[in-house]
Amino acid sequence: MSFQIHETLISDCHYLGKLDTCHILLHRNATIPWFILVPETNKDWFDLNLKFQTQVMGVANNLAYLLKSFFSIKKINQATIGNVVPQLHMHIVGRHSNDACWPKPIWGQSYETKTYSQEKLECLKNLISRW
Amino acid sequence: MSFQIHETLISDCHYLGKLDTCHILLHRNATIPWFILVPETNKDWFDLNLKFQTQVMGVANNLAYLLKSFFSIKKINQATIGNVVPQLHMHIVGRHSNDACWPKPIWGQSYETKTYSQEKLECLKNLISRW
Repeated sequence: MSFQIHETLISDCHYLGKLDTCHILLHRNATIPWFILVPETNKDWFDLNLKFQTQVMGVANNLAYLLKSFFSIKKINQATIGNVVPQLHMHIVGRHSNDACWPKPIWGQSYETKTYSQEKLECLKNLISRW
Repeated sequence: MSFQIHETLISDCHYLGKLDTCHILLHRNATIPWFILVPETNKDWFDLNLKFQTQVMGVANNLAYLLKSFFSIKKINQATIGNVVPQLHMHIVGRHSNDACWPKPIWGQSYETKTYSQEKLECLKNLISRW
């Protein structure tokens, strides 16, 4: 059976593309730029072998570069939590010292909602498709 | 000048030992088992090269194994945040579906405080010193 991304991640995010074995999502709330990386596995992070972890971290590094260059981000929060959505997914979140949640982590916080323009989404998809 | 662990981490944690280039700390609140890994660097996670990241992840994998075996943990939360303490540190947190914060991430939450016995701390130090 083909790999299915968890329905909560699908509904919370825009789908941007795939790199190696990782699906790349962008959280729909544009207030804080927030990528979510979904590796094609049914294991949890610490059940993966180091080789697979390194491959995923390589993709995460690309997304961190995109946060820095495209969103002018200097500080990045990274996490694998999965207490609510059990499917392995890595958060890569661009933070500013004047953003809506600072200095708290974004998870479990509520804050204002903004949407991405179609143009910006297409631009991000194009950038990722060239990797 | 020698590497100094940030004073907030020192005051929040027990020092357990060092592996490769990583100092291993244990959060003093024993309610939720919570390792903090401090690599000897002045860079942020996504400014490290993949080789160094992989080395740190190898140590993190050992700590995850310790959470599973010593604390009977099945679910692990992992994060590099650093919004308050800027020095790079990786959280490796053992979670239970009936713990004091579940299903929220532990960061920024307040919950009951317990202390570790000296015996348990010595045991953990001994286990880590054998790696």
